[in-house]
Amino acid sequence: MRLATLSNSRPDGELVVISRDATRCLPATGIADTLQQAIEQWATVEPALHILAERVEQGDSEALDHERLLAPLPRAWQWLDGSAFPQHADLMQKAFKLPPIEMDRPLMYQGLSDRFLTATQDVPFPSEADGIDFEGEFGIITGAVPMGVTAEDAMAHVRLIVQINDWSLRAIAPVEMKTGFGWVQAKPACSVAPFAVTPDELGDAWQDGRVHLPLHVTVNGEWFGHPHGREMAFGFHDLIAHAARTRDLVAGTIIGSGTVSNADYAKVGSSCLSERRAIEMMEGGAPVTPFLHYGDRIQMEVPGNIFGTIDQRVTAAAP
Amino acid sequence: MRLATLSNSRPDGELVVISRDATRCLPATGIADTLQQAIEQWATVEPALHILAERVEQGDSEALDHERLLAPLPRAWQWLDGSAFPQHADLMQKAFKLPPIEMDRPLMYQGLSDRFLTATQDVPFPSEADGIDFEGEFGIITGAVPMGVTAEDAMAHVRLIVQINDWSLRAIAPVEMKTGFGWVQAKPACSVAPFAVTPDELGDAWQDGRVHLPLHVTVNGEWFGHPHGREMAFGFHDLIAHAARTRDLVAGTIIGSGTVSNADYAKVGSSCLSERRAIEMMEGGAPVTPFLHYGDRIQMEVPGNIFGTIDQRVTAAAP
Repeated sequence: MRLATLSNSRPDGELVVISRDATRCLPATGIADTLQQAIEQWATVEPALHILAERVEQGDSEALDHERLLAPLPRAWQWLDGSAFPQHADLMQKAFKLPPIEMDRPLMYQGLSDRFLTATQDVPFPSEADGIDFEGEFGIITGAVPMGVTAEDAMAHVRLIVQINDWSLRAIAPVEMKTGFGWVQAKPACSVAPFAVTPDELGDAWQDGRVHLPLHVTVNGEWFGHPHGREMAFGFHDLIAHAARTRDLVAGTIIGSGTVSNADYAKVGSSCLSERRAIEMMEGGAPVTPFLHYGDRIQMEVPGNIFGTIDQRVTAAAP
Repeated sequence: MRLATLSNSRPDGELVVISRDATRCLPATGIADTLQQAIEQWATVEPALHILAERVEQGDSEALDHERLLAPLPRAWQWLDGSAFPQHADLMQKAFKLPPIEMDRPLMYQGLSDRFLTATQDVPFPSEADGIDFEGEFGIITGAVPMGVTAEDAMAHVRLIVQINDWSLRAIAPVEMKTGFGWVQAKPACSVAPFAVTPDELGDAWQDGRVHLPLHVTVNGEWFGHPHGREMAFGFHDLIAHAARTRDLVAGTIIGSGTVSNADYAKVGSSCLSERRAIEMMEGGAPVTPFLHYGDRIQMEVPGNIFGTIDQRVTAAAP
């Protein structure tokens, strides 16, 4: 089942069920007004949404207006981003000249969750000098999770899977990291691909709490990378258990994988500029690829376009 | 003007205006259902709330049911906690044996905002071995703030002032700090004193974006400290500008001062255990004061009880 949120007059939009080919939809009116509400009442809502999804496939549905697609959760009560791909941690350590980060426990930070950008809107930044970068990620949306959940039990709390672009400002990131406080300025709002899908929808591509799909990234229409989601050192169930160690997780918590990154980066490329720059530093002594300029265009999608396409331009924020 | 939120059947509760002596109140029915709604529509809501506040003082009001008091914002879209008292940073650096943290820019992390505990509820923790500690803080609630706001202009976006206990787990904090990612496990939900007050309500005690009041803290009924709010290296207006450097701030953003801490700590004491332990380490080579045990009771308030009293017990979370 694939779910999406359409814009209306309210900040959380309107929940719709989407056809497999992403051309048709039906509003979830009478079942759940918003995706947040659906997640909060999943046990009763999910069966009704599945029936709706069958109706959508049978053609009893409306044309999907792609112009109205928002992020599946236009805002959320919690966004926790992991960094579960060891190759990414390794390259970022080299890029930022940081001390080695031990990967004996999941890396995770609390991020801005009051807004998630749509997959197609222009993304305004205050300065190109901040080192504007993208980070291609997978993510999950959880139900309510009790504090102290085990990783094994956590798997049952995965409600939906999403695809994310975690915008990052690389000139600020290492300055904030050195304080130990994590990122505020370096991590403005993320963008999210429009379709949130249930784990069963991925079939064999959902295994061990990992998305076994490559994430195809282009910059200004040119191939940048297609690293694969399977190489997470910790699965999403491990990330849930880590996050819930000392807190209950609110229904609708979004947890990110961190930048998708693979050991054979020479072949599959990257899903953020900083990694390519780190590779260039290792190989030639200095980075060659610049960070983003205003007007640059980023696209991200998986084969079959399961989550829909992130396709955005970077722009200058109004002064 | 003093505002509070009473429990009802909804997660954000019911907004009420409180009398100066905190014995009477009137619901803001017809003006704003919740504090979040009031903050979002402050320009039109504030004058109506002021008229209501006058009615409350004139006795045309209901008895305030203290049992129903929630945190002013029982949940918020954003909680950004600063660490603006240099004495606290200095002592924590010694306590955690961290490299010196430069205070040339505000320190700030993004924290859990999906729930704020009431000032009187028991606070459950999974393990005493996590090093359970409190942190007495002041905080502000902002309106919508545009990205790039100057510190000077930021002052006008301060809507309300609050008093916070930022629960902290000290055995986990330095482990998370060393990753540079900030805190997830070490910072579970905060507690907030029940009354949120407008800056004018503080009179001369609101100066330079700082709360010029001492915060009185007791542990199990014994004096622990009464450090003063004026010694912030950065005022709240500076913290707003810092937070809004690369993002708009959503209306209802809560920003914390960090642990209130003074240079003459030998005289005024502390507002967290870790500082006292750091002082003990400096003076005697080892910490003497233990972290909290289940059953321990923490109280925090300012003279005149302007924000109401935080008075809580630490308990064991259900296994």
